[in-house]
This record gives sequence, C-alpha cells and structure tokens, in this order.
Amino acid sequence: MTDAWLDAIKWDADGLVPAIAQEEGTGVILMMAWMNREALRLTHETGHAVYWSRSRGRLWHKGEESGHQQSVRALRIDCDGDVVLLQVEQKGGIACHTGRHNCFFRELDANGDWAEISPVLQDPDTIYRNP
Amino acid sequence: MTDAWLDAIKWDADGLVPAIAQEEGTGVILMMAWMNREALRLTHETGHAVYWSRSRGRLWHKGEESGHQQSVRALRIDCDGDVVLLQVEQKGGIACHTGRHNCFFRELDANGDWAEISPVLQDPDTIYRNP
Repeated sequence: MTDAWLDAIKWDADGLVPAIAQEEGTGVILMMAWMNREALRLTHETGHAVYWSRSRGRLWHKGEESGHQQSVRALRIDCDGDVVLLQVEQKGGIACHTGRHNCFFRELDANGDWAEISPVLQDPDTIYRNP
Repeated sequence: MTDAWLDAIKWDADGLVPAIAQEEGTGVILMMAWMNREALRLTHETGHAVYWSRSRGRLWHKGEESGHQQSVRALRIDCDGDVVLLQVEQKGGIACHTGRHNCFFRELDANGDWAEISPVLQDPDTIYRNP
C-alpha cells in the first residue's frame, strides 16, 4: 500500500486538515483537532489517532500523557477532501483534557449562556502528571 | 438576549470557526463547513444553519437553492471555544451537494483506496436548477 491515498486530501495553506473524532457505536463527537500529512500517515500506520498540535507546533500522539488513546476503526473524508473523519474507540472513555467524555460539553441555553451539559469524569490533575 | 455568547468563540485569523453539523437522533455527521460571526448569529436568530462560503466569499444560507435546510436543535462549542457543533434536522434527508445523505461517504479500504460507502439519493442536477 502506497501513500497515494494521502494525495486525495486537500491540505490548507498551513499543510493541515481538520480531523473529527467520532466514537464508534455511540456516534458521540469526541473532539476536533488538526492533522498534517505525517500525522494522518502515522494515524493509519499505528492505528491510533495522531494529531498536529498547533499550539505546541509538534506531532501529538493522542493519549501520550493521559493514556487516553483513540483506536481508529475507520478513516473517512468528505466530498471536498478537506475534512477527515475518524471512527474511534476512546480508551478510558475520556477524550477531553478537562476530564470529560468529549469536548463539546457547552450548549447555548435560552438565556444566551453556554451551559455545561456533561460531567467531569476524572480530575485533570490526576490525568496529567507533569512534574 | 445579547450577543455576548458570540464572544466566547475563538475566531481564527480569518474570523472563521469550523462548524460541524450532526443529525439529531441518528448521530450521523452530515458535514463540516465554516462560519463567521454573522453566520453564527444568523444561525441562532433564524434557527437554520447559515455558513460562510470560503469559495464564494459570502454568507451561505444552507438550502437556499436546494431547499435542504438544516433546522438547528442545539448549538454547542468545544473546550477551547474554537469549534462549533450543531445538532440539526436535515430537510430532505440530503446534506451533501453530491446528492448523498452526508458528505463523509468515502472510507479508506484495505487496499488504500477511498471507497464510496453511501449511495446518491438524488441526482444533483435535479437538486440545483441554475439557469
């Protein structure tokens, strides 16, 4: 298998593409992050989601600190080839750095406030043990 | 209700934010497009998804030509405030301009090819009647 499949992706001016991680089975959208060509190639090669961290300017092997890896069950692209969709199994049941199941835990309510709709499952201080 | 809720969004350098449309009930991810502040404000105000078309450089009232509007049931943002998630009802059952239910109809197979996994429900020529 060559890397020709990567040529179908329309990378943006920064060489990135948005990548949506959806939980297989439940359909819950866990998070959206970014990938460059190497991240997507590694995601396919290793079977675990690898993103490009724009803030840290480096590859980010999801779960490298927390253990909360995402096992990739399927890779899809959209009609324009400029968005990637991953079907994943979320290790530990926690995708968000806030300790929640997913990152989309704020919903606009009738008062115009962003209300939290999902609980913290684990204290982030116990997830990330940076010395 | 003021527009203060819009200030929670972290717009990118172009004043845009990625917006994921997910079908309420099924959990199917229909598409990902982009919104600027006005598009998101109008989405909330009208109850129908309004995007910013980067290719056309203008607001794009989803369904303006096809009738395939997206009725918005909920608006969510992620932990970083830089991705919007819409829970929608898809009018006509077709979100993609190719005439498919959703835009993520290509999946990487074992041979490294992007295989089509969803059928065309309606010929695009009968959806868009541009003179």
